[in-house]
Amino acid sequence: MSLAHTNTHPSATATGVTAPAGFSAAGVTAGLKSTGKNDVVLVQNHGPNFTAAGVFTSNRVAAAPVHWSKQVLSDGRVDAVLLNSGGANACTGAEGFGNTHRSAEYVAELLSVSASDVAVASTGLIGVQLPMDKLLPGVKAAAAALATDQGASDEAAAGIMTTDTVPKLVSRVVGPAGSTQITIGGMAKGAGMLAPALATMLVVLTTDAVLTSEQADTALRAATAMSFDRADSDGCMSTNDTVLLLASGASGTTPDMAEFTAALTDACCELAAKLIEDAEGADHTIAIRTYNAASEADALEVSKAVSRSNLVKTAVFGKDPNWGRVLSEVGTTKAAFEPDELNVSINSVMVCKNGGVGEDRNLVSLEERNVSIEIDLNAGTAEATVLTNDLTHDYVHENSAYSS
Amino acid sequence: MSLAHTNTHPSATATGVTAPAGFSAAGVTAGLKSTGKNDVVLVQNHGPNFTAAGVFTSNRVAAAPVHWSKQVLSDGRVDAVLLNSGGANACTGAEGFGNTHRSAEYVAELLSVSASDVAVASTGLIGVQLPMDKLLPGVKAAAAALATDQGASDEAAAGIMTTDTVPKLVSRVVGPAGSTQITIGGMAKGAGMLAPALATMLVVLTTDAVLTSEQADTALRAATAMSFDRADSDGCMSTNDTVLLLASGASGTTPDMAEFTAALTDACCELAAKLIEDAEGADHTIAIRTYNAASEADALEVSKAVSRSNLVKTAVFGKDPNWGRVLSEVGTTKAAFEPDELNVSINSVMVCKNGGVGEDRNLVSLEERNVSIEIDLNAGTAEATVLTNDLTHDYVHENSAYSS
Repeated sequence: MSLAHTNTHPSATATGVTAPAGFSAAGVTAGLKSTGKNDVVLVQNHGPNFTAAGVFTSNRVAAAPVHWSKQVLSDGRVDAVLLNSGGANACTGAEGFGNTHRSAEYVAELLSVSASDVAVASTGLIGVQLPMDKLLPGVKAAAAALATDQGASDEAAAGIMTTDTVPKLVSRVVGPAGSTQITIGGMAKGAGMLAPALATMLVVLTTDAVLTSEQADTALRAATAMSFDRADSDGCMSTNDTVLLLASGASGTTPDMAEFTAALTDACCELAAKLIEDAEGADHTIAIRTYNAASEADALEVSKAVSRSNLVKTAVFGKDPNWGRVLSEVGTTKAAFEPDELNVSINSVMVCKNGGVGEDRNLVSLEERNVSIEIDLNAGTAEATVLTNDLTHDYVHENSAYSS
Repeated sequence: MSLAHTNTHPSATATGVTAPAGFSAAGVTAGLKSTGKNDVVLVQNHGPNFTAAGVFTSNRVAAAPVHWSKQVLSDGRVDAVLLNSGGANACTGAEGFGNTHRSAEYVAELLSVSASDVAVASTGLIGVQLPMDKLLPGVKAAAAALATDQGASDEAAAGIMTTDTVPKLVSRVVGPAGSTQITIGGMAKGAGMLAPALATMLVVLTTDAVLTSEQADTALRAATAMSFDRADSDGCMSTNDTVLLLASGASGTTPDMAEFTAALTDACCELAAKLIEDAEGADHTIAIRTYNAASEADALEVSKAVSRSNLVKTAVFGKDPNWGRVLSEVGTTKAAFEPDELNVSINSVMVCKNGGVGEDRNLVSLEERNVSIEIDLNAGTAEATVLTNDLTHDYVHENSAYSS
């Protein structure tokens, strides 16, 4: 239940948003993306419950669908979610909001639900209006294609990809075998503009648990705080981040909330790790663990500071265990520590001891994809891990060419 | 007197630390750098006054010479400054501090001054002890080479370079022609790990003005706040930043402090601009001006946030006027503004109006080195400019290979 490179927790055979009972999904090609790949996605909750919670970007320049979906979530009910890639619908003014509204109305009409229960999420370039003449036919096709099988989950997860290279799906089963188990499913996209306090990412989580909207909200906030909020690819916060949890109640089971929250957190950690593993241009996934901190807040501040250092990230790209750059970032924080009591280990080699030279840095190998940087503050017992990735030529290339 | 791309203010013919009366300098090759270029530098103040002020990195993991020089500056007197490139002497423990102390003692002996009046500044790789067997002979050679001519200024400025591609010198003359004028001189180094609150940079400013140490301190803090604190290359704060101002009083003139501070600020802005113009791998120098802000603090927060965005910086590298990435950063700040009242101009083309699409982005040319991004918050009358540079393949290359 923490951010780590490898997740070995048991998964259900089915994965993605249709894994739990009560959900259908579809992903189709509407032509919003020039690649001709899936770009319009629908997820429908068939009940009997329509409980929902949402967490959104804290960016004050929020996209039209974020404004819309916050309103939709205000009564804790969502019947369907419309998602699109190929356009963020951010910084698009009244026309952009009107387009979001109109597409939600169209979904409502097609699925015979209320538009005020249709959440919308968009991703892609900022500052461009969505081509409604393409989007609306796509919505119609998606509604017609809604299905509950694995293929539907797969098509949906593919439809929200932008610069992602792989679709990202997850599932968890809660409760002992033999009992009436609860299933959690989910999908995510996001490969750039990833930062704590949520990142360019769209995440839809589904479950057949019986939840109140308060329970869903509490569980979702706890889960995102431990997962997506601790994944930072490039320090840039998106205008469109949206994480939704839909609960159908189709299992008929009210879960133990501690157990449910743990499984939801675990699922979110897996998705967060998948986002970082697929970060734009990344050669290395870097887990930055700060331990022996006076508080979890201190540990998190230190891990986040290091995760945002371009110099640390380029050093890892260059396979250079440059611990001085790590210490230099630690020194910019307000965390409790004494500079001459800091230890830093890179891939388990303690290259910095007591704030100075430790074991031979040549003992560190950075050939593998996964890198561990562990910072011992020697100031307490708290810890926190943040996942990030290296800064590479491919990141520069991809982001200098993205909109052109 | 603000950060701008081009400085057209009058300079004295002589430039660098020996431009004012009362100063000698030298730069020699001691073999600390594998390149065989100058790496040990001395600057001596010959009085009659020995007034000094210093501003240092706020990084809590500060290098040994920073700890030493802070002590030296505590009585407002400096007779000489020893600087070296080829090693930062940071994270080097008691041995590192001992080496700084020993080298100051050696300078004191050679120049017949007190070691407690010898400031020390180092730059280079963190976590490596300085080779004293090379450094001390270099100090001796530098002491023997001390001179007051332009060549001495040039050799000194060359000796503090690390990844800098050009030496950085400055001078200003204060006071009307015909009167007894005051001269300000200076040199700087720094091309990476540059961030507000001071950056990997060493700066020595000299003047022949008659100043008290309080006047020197006030003027220096005012000047750095408007210049080096508003230059951010890569968001990384160094362990070694040091800015020193030495005043010899050799002109015999006590300046009008407003006029002197303005000239000192102007000189610092020129040096800060030179640092950013020579930033590692940079193709573009970017001036980010936020205006119509409710306060200068708001304007500064917004300009700094944008200057730290890897996505904005890669877009500029790709000659892509991607204003959505600018707005997205503005949205992460606490500054007063309404999202639908924001305007953004890139090279004078208002590509974003009222938070949405403005003039045609294809009208923006990013072929030239200098780029202007202007953000209108529509919330007041304050403004602030921060200088940064783009994020390029060469930055990644240089910083993934620096220590190996």
